[in-house]
Amino acid sequence: MPLVRISLMKGKPDEFVGQKVGEVVYQAMVDTINVPAKDHFQIITDHDSNTLIYDPTYLDIQRTPGIIVIQITLNEGLTVELKKLLYQTIAERLHREIDVRREDDFINLVEVKKENWSFGNGIAQYA
Amino acid sequence: MPLVRISLMKGKPDEFVGQKVGEVVYQAMVDTINVPAKDHFQIITDHDSNTLIYDPTYLDIQRTPGIIVIQITLNEGLTVELKKLLYQTIAERLHREIDVRREDDFINLVEVKKENWSFGNGIAQYA
Amino acid sequence: MPLVRISLMKGKPDEFVGQKVGEVVYQAMVDTINVPAKDHFQIITDHDSNTLIYDPTYLDIQRTPGIIVIQITLNEGLTVELKKLLYQTIAERLHREIDVRREDDFINLVEVKKENWSFGNGIAQYA
Repeated sequence: MPLVRISLMKGKPDEFVGQKVGEVVYQAMVDTINVPAKDHFQIITDHDSNTLIYDPTYLDIQRTPGIIVIQITLNEGLTVELKKLLYQTIAERLHREIDVRREDDFINLVEVKKENWSFGNGIAQYA
Repeated sequence: MPLVRISLMKGKPDEFVGQKVGEVVYQAMVDTINVPAKDHFQIITDHDSNTLIYDPTYLDIQRTPGIIVIQITLNEGLTVELKKLLYQTIAERLHREIDVRREDDFINLVEVKKENWSFGNGIAQYA
Repeated sequence: MPLVRISLMKGKPDEFVGQKVGEVVYQAMVDTINVPAKDHFQIITDHDSNTLIYDPTYLDIQRTPGIIVIQITLNEGLTVELKKLLYQTIAERLHREIDVRREDDFINLVEVKKENWSFGNGIAQYA
């Protein structure tokens, strides 16, 4: 159900960094906000500094070109506490597992109703 | 008013498959949920298997690299029945008209208020 | 807080047109809807006519390949009047500052709750 869009700079040494980020985000959602196993759908785009624009100091957080913008469309209804836990878990694991600076995570949630998804066969599986 | 984002794998034999998908989605919206004629705005992105991530069996639906992810931003207020009709119509027509497997449609709706659009000239035409 | 996605045709004479559009949109948000200074995060994608689809006359507005699709995810709660002022300001400035036709602006807002953002360090800074 979550549809995750991940945007990051290209030119990283490992071409699979986008996928690794995606796996960490997916597992964090399973472990914190009850996303079902296998509910893993993501769109990753690579950018250069002309097309991924960020402020390097907004809110006194020091960002680098290692910034990763994660926009997650998911069902509405999470508590504020669960959202906070999700952000914290993503940031901790991206840092621990693939060495992403904690300052370089940008996360945004877009909430929709449960009938706003079809996972195939033209059926609204969650409605 | 709907803004449609379509993501699919590149390397298909026909380079216009994205456009054809878009035309089917557009016409399905006109015919089922009362989208006005000519209200046709879409952004299509091609991906490889490293950047379009999907689970091949979630909800026991067998997906292939032919997966098409369709995210539609549109005005709020559709009934659940109309949303279901839209999904069904898109899946049936993509299958019949351009041979997309029904299992390979992934559709998500993001709803917004009617004043959240400007179609040009800096005016909120629907407000 | 606003996350801005800008989609435009490639092949423009100036490769930085996307960034210039982004700067105008950012400044318009600061000046009209109270977006904080430095809150500047944008994702820009270039397209060709096969992947950026628009109707050239919908609502009797004459659009050209110079079309710019701007989708802004931001906090909910703006009045209709402020949204109108934002659209008008973006269109006027894009025209005046970088010669974008007013008819070629397509703007869409997606609204989210204030706790739906993390700007780094895994913290929900606005919650």
